[in-house]
Amino acid sequence: MNRVLLVEDDPDDLELARLAFARGDFSSSIDVARDGAEALDYLLSPDREPPQVVLLDIKLPLVDGIDVLRRVKADERTRHIPVVMLTSSALDRDLHACYELGANSYIVKPVDMEQFMAAVNNIGVYWLSLNLTETHS
Amino acid sequence: MNRVLLVEDDPDDLELARLAFARGDFSSSIDVARDGAEALDYLLSPDREPPQVVLLDIKLPLVDGIDVLRRVKADERTRHIPVVMLTSSALDRDLHACYELGANSYIVKPVDMEQFMAAVNNIGVYWLSLNLTETHS
Repeated sequence: MNRVLLVEDDPDDLELARLAFARGDFSSSIDVARDGAEALDYLLSPDREPPQVVLLDIKLPLVDGIDVLRRVKADERTRHIPVVMLTSSALDRDLHACYELGANSYIVKPVDMEQFMAAVNNIGVYWLSLNLTETHS
Repeated sequence: MNRVLLVEDDPDDLELARLAFARGDFSSSIDVARDGAEALDYLLSPDREPPQVVLLDIKLPLVDGIDVLRRVKADERTRHIPVVMLTSSALDRDLHACYELGANSYIVKPVDMEQFMAAVNNIGVYWLSLNLTETHS
């Protein structure tokens, strides 16, 4: 089954995202990391199948999202995993840094709850049903 | 207005993609390059605003899509532009090469006409309404 890694420490956003995925018409299971260190442990673990997409917040405890992105995209084992930044920051500085480091996409979290869920659903359809990723060989 | 650069030499796919964009509920205008050299001219022109997304075929006359991708992602002026590979090739070799070179996304063209249009529409919604790109500073 398709796996998504959601890296998010805000409990409300986490719950909404889970709900949006549960409602979506794509089969997937969501794994959650609540801080950047946990996300890196998950992604760099040699025994785990890579997820089809990572949804990555920027402001995170322990290791922030930009550092997680840097590590993932600098590592040959993980650089091919699509990383979508999903953040409340629309700062040019963050946008620029993320694209420079190889983020596949950058999405600003809609403030409105329904719009947030619609966005997460759209992200799911795109990356799980439409986009093709490399699988472990 | 949002601009999309579609790099495609197949007249049927071109027409279907135009139609899908015209039907989509996002305002955009499509620019078309019919071979890889034309795509590079377009993207590397210093006077032109970068498009919000490039839809890039692999098999193209003159310069193939993988070479266009390599040039775009190796150039500081253009590497932040999202490039979605939209191709009939599902070969692991192509998939791997494109992600290695920094493709933002890789989508295999559905063979069915309606599904192809639905895919293009989905790509449009995602990259034009949801994803945030850098604008020229």
